[in-house]
Amino acid sequence: MGITRRDFLMRVGQAGGYSAAFATMQSLGLMPMKATAAEPIAAAERAGKGIKLVVMGGGVAGLTTAYEAKKLGYDVTLLEARHRPGGRAWSARNGDVVEFVDGTKQPITWSEGLYQNMGPARLPSVHGTMLGYCRELKVPLEVEVNTSRSTLLQNDKVNGGKAICQRKAINDTRGQLSELLSKAIAGGALDQELTSEDRQRMTDVLKVYGPLDKGGKYVGSDRADIKRYPGAGPQTMIVDDHPLTLPELLDANFWSAELYEEAWDWQATMFQPINGMQQISIAFAKALGPVVVYDAPVTEIAKTAKGVRVTYGSGKTIEADYAVCAMPLTILKKIKADLDPAHRGAVDRGGASYRGSCKVPWESRRFWETDYNIYGGLSFLAQGPSPIWYPSASMFSERGIIVSGYMDEAMGGFDQMTIEQKFEASRASIEKLHPGHGKELEKPIFCGWKHIKWNEGSWIGQTPQADYDILTQPDGPIFFAGDHTSHVVGWQEGAALSGRRAVQMICDRVKDTSARA
Amino acid sequence: MGITRRDFLMRVGQAGGYSAAFATMQSLGLMPMKATAAEPIAAAERAGKGIKLVVMGGGVAGLTTAYEAKKLGYDVTLLEARHRPGGRAWSARNGDVVEFVDGTKQPITWSEGLYQNMGPARLPSVHGTMLGYCRELKVPLEVEVNTSRSTLLQNDKVNGGKAICQRKAINDTRGQLSELLSKAIAGGALDQELTSEDRQRMTDVLKVYGPLDKGGKYVGSDRADIKRYPGAGPQTMIVDDHPLTLPELLDANFWSAELYEEAWDWQATMFQPINGMQQISIAFAKALGPVVVYDAPVTEIAKTAKGVRVTYGSGKTIEADYAVCAMPLTILKKIKADLDPAHRGAVDRGGASYRGSCKVPWESRRFWETDYNIYGGLSFLAQGPSPIWYPSASMFSERGIIVSGYMDEAMGGFDQMTIEQKFEASRASIEKLHPGHGKELEKPIFCGWKHIKWNEGSWIGQTPQADYDILTQPDGPIFFAGDHTSHVVGWQEGAALSGRRAVQMICDRVKDTSARA
Repeated sequence: MGITRRDFLMRVGQAGGYSAAFATMQSLGLMPMKATAAEPIAAAERAGKGIKLVVMGGGVAGLTTAYEAKKLGYDVTLLEARHRPGGRAWSARNGDVVEFVDGTKQPITWSEGLYQNMGPARLPSVHGTMLGYCRELKVPLEVEVNTSRSTLLQNDKVNGGKAICQRKAINDTRGQLSELLSKAIAGGALDQELTSEDRQRMTDVLKVYGPLDKGGKYVGSDRADIKRYPGAGPQTMIVDDHPLTLPELLDANFWSAELYEEAWDWQATMFQPINGMQQISIAFAKALGPVVVYDAPVTEIAKTAKGVRVTYGSGKTIEADYAVCAMPLTILKKIKADLDPAHRGAVDRGGASYRGSCKVPWESRRFWETDYNIYGGLSFLAQGPSPIWYPSASMFSERGIIVSGYMDEAMGGFDQMTIEQKFEASRASIEKLHPGHGKELEKPIFCGWKHIKWNEGSWIGQTPQADYDILTQPDGPIFFAGDHTSHVVGWQEGAALSGRRAVQMICDRVKDTSARA
Repeated sequence: MGITRRDFLMRVGQAGGYSAAFATMQSLGLMPMKATAAEPIAAAERAGKGIKLVVMGGGVAGLTTAYEAKKLGYDVTLLEARHRPGGRAWSARNGDVVEFVDGTKQPITWSEGLYQNMGPARLPSVHGTMLGYCRELKVPLEVEVNTSRSTLLQNDKVNGGKAICQRKAINDTRGQLSELLSKAIAGGALDQELTSEDRQRMTDVLKVYGPLDKGGKYVGSDRADIKRYPGAGPQTMIVDDHPLTLPELLDANFWSAELYEEAWDWQATMFQPINGMQQISIAFAKALGPVVVYDAPVTEIAKTAKGVRVTYGSGKTIEADYAVCAMPLTILKKIKADLDPAHRGAVDRGGASYRGSCKVPWESRRFWETDYNIYGGLSFLAQGPSPIWYPSASMFSERGIIVSGYMDEAMGGFDQMTIEQKFEASRASIEKLHPGHGKELEKPIFCGWKHIKWNEGSWIGQTPQADYDILTQPDGPIFFAGDHTSHVVGWQEGAALSGRRAVQMICDRVKDTSARA
């Protein structure tokens, strides 16, 4: 036991993050957060006029950097290794190919209209920077259903391995804990903690909160499990009166899965762009127009007397006053780059730490909707590939993409399996939750970011605080951006904020340089 | 204290329901519910051939009755008093008029594209009958966000009357209760209840569940309240470490509002038809074509030797073998109808019991989205019109319809106010939650169903069980449908199930009659 939030986040694939320097800002106290849109970049209008900037990497960090710099009048070029923008923010669909560094190619042949966000797939409403860009770039959003009470939890060790509904686990947990607390209060255990009046209030409240019966017992609840729904005429509701017992709940160990909806950046309401997360990157690229140069992998970064010279593609070069490295450190560390020893070390160690988050999407008939009333959300298994991620896109249509396994491939020996074995393990997870439906799955893809060309990792792992402090400062004319230079690792929000910060730092430098000139 | 679920449901306007006869069906045990689509109607193909049926009332019950009967070959006529289908399932918009029985008229002048579902506004995913009809009639749905952690709770008695975020109330509650339970276990209060091993497991689990610190104390959580979000560079997250205390939570009395998302028919995932709930009724009406006769209020229902004769409009009559009364009992009780004394009594008492649920929608700039990160969901106030219902339709657009007050007008003296006073009370609720924004509200409407022509009530109130038993059986050739003949009062699901049940009963009668003939 003793799952910390970090452990849980790692389990579901959202690991990373630094503990870092401390700074203060407004305290919001008990009041709700106001809009979290990024602060405007503090720079004069056209502050970048006549200044050449080269941005390396066309993921969200690089796109944001270029977009904000262009707004300020910088002469920007963005070099992107691929023939598409977005980096990990990739919405893969029919005709696309998952290409590994070892040459493995998985062509996608899903039905027309279906897609999977292979990288980021959620926009929390507290990620105001990204929501702000969606507004600004007019990217239409729809609700991403992150939690649904109809999703499932499964552990081979309990209930004979049969899945249990989220609504039952969550509400039976609350009920059993409330009964325990009610008993403790009745037994006088909390007489020192609570006034007599508060003990009475708590006892009453627990009857609602549990809910508990008049005797303070939890006997099940329509919140948790209904044997028969109410209907017309004589058909009354029948509530299941066999709640999970506390020992069963302890054995099941579903706690972190019961609580994921409370993680601050996983709380409702969440969004996704209609037709895929990549729509945001596509909108950035469209706004940037010819600024973006595709099929332009960087091969060398050199400092010059007046700034930087970047070599890319088949030996082309570009000279600029400043550069922003917005590519993953896994890629940057392999490029010949004129970095000072401190930055070189931080890049190398960071690049070596990257995680191997992966997703295993399948095409299928939407049996989870028609046969299980599951519309979006996640189901968790204690053993094997997990979680199962049900699509929020095109609900009620015939077919959809379901992810069976979204985790770090280093977990549970997944990285030791062949791709075919991975698919069978992934199918087995579905079969455990949805018996008889494993066979409906087809056209699987293993999108293991550790192996993906131009990424070679999902996001940065644990690295020394000192390295973070180095990478978040420029090396001469070379600045760094990417979710790895933020405390919002693995999220587009971190990438976008890091890009904005890079532009702010460059503007400050430019101002400083002009003042001195 | 001691809020029962019924009390809470009444508070938010979902009162009603009978306790009724008991019947058994399959037990689903711990497994998730399978699809809850209605059972097919058991009748031979074209079972209704040559049989004339008149349906009175074009709300969801009447439309479902006519639709299913038509499928079975019945010769159906549906008489609807209004010039539109849907009854309470009304999506009001620019050009519509809210018309009271006392002659009061409120013309709606909202901006183009905006609407408010004045009656039902949510489709829970467990309401398989309605979802099934949406599939069958190809009514496009979108997610209805019923709960969002960004919504607010407010009580004049706590926090100086300032609103508190749902995420804080919910997570501080869990934290404080976990701390109490952890202390009780540590003090030995539950030694009789739990084995030593389970006490240890519980202690560990509560650290995750609360979450609690190593000492078993709840000191706040990023689930509850964040003073500063994490960002790029040095910007780390700062968690607020001043959770609400237990006495504060007890004073605040937010329990039912913290738990509404767990009500079995309010749990995520929920839906709404794109462009208004009425789209379902419109689709039914379209499928029925000339079966539906509008502007045809019924004035008399008479039994005849071969069935029924219904008089409607300006004295037109229609003869039929069977009739289904699918109008509200408030309306039926005023019509001259050839009912036996038992049915007459049940209709009269039922009609007199109707509730007066109302909504007060306003047009406004979407300040709740831009300034509060609130996208859908409900905010609750302890005093004054409540809840506030934020729209799930057209999020991220400029303007929207916000409901400030969805409750029974009998509560809190709302029915004693003039319409202008109601509007000021409604505006004051918004001002309490969103200071400074009350003035952004415009074009209010008071949709009090008690006063609406052709409804005169929102749904049936408490009536004797015996009356329910009478009304759910026919009076000779006259059958009854409507959510009031179901245990799903106030929901379209109940109306649809009741309509299907009426058709089933008629088919059974027809079969029985033919067998005897």
